[in-house]
Amino acid sequence: MEHHSHSNTLKIKSLGIDTYRENTVFMRSDCHICRSEGFTALTRLVVHYKRKRIIATLIVVHSDLLRENEAGLSDIALKRLDVKEGDLITVSHLKPIESLSDVRAKMYHKKINEAAYRKIISDITNGFYSDIEIAAFITACAGDNMDLDEITWLTKAMIDSGSKLKWDEKIILDKHCVGGLPGNRTTPIVVAIVAAAGLIIPKTSSRAITSSSGTADTMETITTVNLSIEKMREVVNKEGGCFAWGRSAKLSPADDILIAVEKALDIDSSGQMIASVLSKKAASGSTHVVIEIPFGETAKVRTHEEALKLQYYFKAVGHAINLNVEVLITDGSQPIGRGIGPSLEAMDVISVLRNDPNAATDLKERSLIIAGALFELSTKFGKGKGYLEAKQILESGKAYDKFNKICLAQGGFTEPTFAKHKIEIKADSSGTVISIDNRKLAKIAKLAGAPHYPSAGIYFSSPIGSKVEKGQTLFTIYSESEGELQYAVDYLKSIHSILKIA
Amino acid sequence: MEHHSHSNTLKIKSLGIDTYRENTVFMRSDCHICRSEGFTALTRLVVHYKRKRIIATLIVVHSDLLRENEAGLSDIALKRLDVKEGDLITVSHLKPIESLSDVRAKMYHKKINEAAYRKIISDITNGFYSDIEIAAFITACAGDNMDLDEITWLTKAMIDSGSKLKWDEKIILDKHCVGGLPGNRTTPIVVAIVAAAGLIIPKTSSRAITSSSGTADTMETITTVNLSIEKMREVVNKEGGCFAWGRSAKLSPADDILIAVEKALDIDSSGQMIASVLSKKAASGSTHVVIEIPFGETAKVRTHEEALKLQYYFKAVGHAINLNVEVLITDGSQPIGRGIGPSLEAMDVISVLRNDPNAATDLKERSLIIAGALFELSTKFGKGKGYLEAKQILESGKAYDKFNKICLAQGGFTEPTFAKHKIEIKADSSGTVISIDNRKLAKIAKLAGAPHYPSAGIYFSSPIGSKVEKGQTLFTIYSESEGELQYAVDYLKSIHSILKIA
Repeated sequence: MEHHSHSNTLKIKSLGIDTYRENTVFMRSDCHICRSEGFTALTRLVVHYKRKRIIATLIVVHSDLLRENEAGLSDIALKRLDVKEGDLITVSHLKPIESLSDVRAKMYHKKINEAAYRKIISDITNGFYSDIEIAAFITACAGDNMDLDEITWLTKAMIDSGSKLKWDEKIILDKHCVGGLPGNRTTPIVVAIVAAAGLIIPKTSSRAITSSSGTADTMETITTVNLSIEKMREVVNKEGGCFAWGRSAKLSPADDILIAVEKALDIDSSGQMIASVLSKKAASGSTHVVIEIPFGETAKVRTHEEALKLQYYFKAVGHAINLNVEVLITDGSQPIGRGIGPSLEAMDVISVLRNDPNAATDLKERSLIIAGALFELSTKFGKGKGYLEAKQILESGKAYDKFNKICLAQGGFTEPTFAKHKIEIKADSSGTVISIDNRKLAKIAKLAGAPHYPSAGIYFSSPIGSKVEKGQTLFTIYSESEGELQYAVDYLKSIHSILKIA
Repeated sequence: MEHHSHSNTLKIKSLGIDTYRENTVFMRSDCHICRSEGFTALTRLVVHYKRKRIIATLIVVHSDLLRENEAGLSDIALKRLDVKEGDLITVSHLKPIESLSDVRAKMYHKKINEAAYRKIISDITNGFYSDIEIAAFITACAGDNMDLDEITWLTKAMIDSGSKLKWDEKIILDKHCVGGLPGNRTTPIVVAIVAAAGLIIPKTSSRAITSSSGTADTMETITTVNLSIEKMREVVNKEGGCFAWGRSAKLSPADDILIAVEKALDIDSSGQMIASVLSKKAASGSTHVVIEIPFGETAKVRTHEEALKLQYYFKAVGHAINLNVEVLITDGSQPIGRGIGPSLEAMDVISVLRNDPNAATDLKERSLIIAGALFELSTKFGKGKGYLEAKQILESGKAYDKFNKICLAQGGFTEPTFAKHKIEIKADSSGTVISIDNRKLAKIAKLAGAPHYPSAGIYFSSPIGSKVEKGQTLFTIYSESEGELQYAVDYLKSIHSILKIA
């Protein structure tokens, strides 16, 4: 037991500071506790309130932001400790976190056991690790440092870190795309086709972190995606499929924490990635999963060799955790669809489902391949028959009908709309579009307001290979305010070119 | 060039928040820039003011801490950008930091070249890395991931990251102890002996980070240690040695940054440690260095094998950067001296220098061994003669005389004093002291106020092997306030026992 005297007590002041996931405690530099305990910046402390305790990183305050005997907590820390302004907390030193010694062993390239992974993930989920400690764990696991056993143990630990869904049906389908291409919104189409065939696909998706839209953002322009586990189950029981935001279902919460630090480090270790994907799938109760790995120069996976290696691990770890995994290695050389931004991508999806003659054929094709693979993996249809069955279900209108029914079950169907303001960007010469800078296009969509304003973004009317005349519209920027539209146009003017016409 | 419109401008509000070394920018969640740029927590931004720019981590504020169009900066960020309340800054997205791709290569166990280490260390010194990126770099280098070339390149890059001292003399001595034992304050004694022999030893030392005292804290109770490079040079030119606080001389600033994150992670990768120690020595202009590696169960270096491996690397890297290095592997099984806390340790040092019959013999012995090794390494005295020469200089009073002169040159000599309040802790049984819990002793010293109040701490009168009677004083706790004394006693009462008597 740690020792607390009453002199360790501080009164909470609410500062409204959002440090995202990291628990932070703000204390005055001249406070009794800081001085006597010898706390310095980067110190980790235990903050107690009644029977709860959290571990938090100290930030020292020199101003009158806090009065004597006051302490502040970041928003997430207030929530985790369940305290409000005026409550009395106590603060004490942190004893070493035991699982960090396993992280150190991993830094030294030792194989660590299943119990170690379980403890590390449990401590991370409980908020006991600082961001730099999480960064050390991620780095120690990168560079092919984990063998097949370890990836499997990490996956299992992540599955057990959160809720798990159980379904009555024997076969539960799911899909995932590794390092999704811009506009690659196959998910809603695949779910509609698969559910229309009478199969079960309780799909959860993520929101954008740094991109202009995630699948959950896109689907939110059409229906409610913030479903509780109970609501999700209700929708799936009724319609066979759903479009839910993953985070709201609290599946594999450790994964969300690890991903945030990985994004900040801009690394994607294959072991962590496999554990991340498969843990989410297993936690959601899936039994059969199709994983798409697009490879290409500007995709996340650069080479065919790398894609093959990932394929092996996905299948082997899947086998070890009783998940039937099929891996599709696909072309990742260019983006898919035309919209960039939640509503505009939703329009792409709906066009394909409605069999609109102007629908993006690349998006349709990719969706049919994935749905076909799911059909064959589930043994609903025999080898070589999946694609054609998927095409028949889509083109007959059954998939669109199912899509509508799922949306209604989730809370309603709203037709996605264009934003109020727009500007058309025209070709300044005639010729054929030979290349597109997707990163710059995505940046313009973000400057225009996506995903914060769902209808903001870009509608792209001239994919690679299009023949264009001088003065013809290449793409249209949409925005909810003149100010943001101008902001996007200013940026566009400041860069050289976004499309090459030759 | 990045693009800035005037709408990117925010007015600085001073918040008085000290995030230690990490640049932090506080922005309202509803501000125009946050929304249009899609900034989220953990985002890294570029903050511009006039011609300066810094990279900072975003913290989002939901309260009225900031008004519209206001932004806050952490203390270090205000200082680095040289702005004050009311100044107008602009904020833009951060382009990828190129050297991070070398860090990622290192994560994947690739050997990276000299230019890569140079760029990484330069970017870290300039504050371009976040703490989690530094944690990733440290982790990627841990676990024997660096070969001899790489440790050498890292060392050179760290030397070049800050100021360098040059001396006219051909031989400049220095010493270092890896993972110092509690109370192991040999430095002031060694400097006095070596300078008394007419050799040059411009010693810099650190302050306590998590312990109850560093050598700089200890020497500060006797004299001024916060010396500019000019003042340090003046003292050394006059007396041959000095006791300076290392940070004030700005040698190897990258090292201070790396050490802070290493401490937080509680790791000490051997490659980083060798680069850290040798870069500080080389930057201070040393030519001959004795490194002490105590090994023992509770020391930083646990085994003789580990000590031998470190010895090899220290000597080889030293050779590569033209530094003559001698390594002493010593006994690290128990602490040295009796005082714990700045003033009390200073008293130990002075007792040895004054040849007080009650002086700690272990501290004297260890100091003579190191001074002797320096004598032999410098070839001032022949092989096997160093120890006896050191003993003669110490016991003749010449070392104490030199110690006084250096102190006077630095700004004066003050006799360290005991704190106002004390309590004697007595034996509750008779017998022989067979073990001591050093960590708990150090914690009591910190609770009593060390190192913040230099005279606070513990004077330890019963080392292992002492025969004690029931009621005899085992140790005395010193404190500057009754409150803190009580705080220390409360803790003492809450734990089982600190000394074992049998």
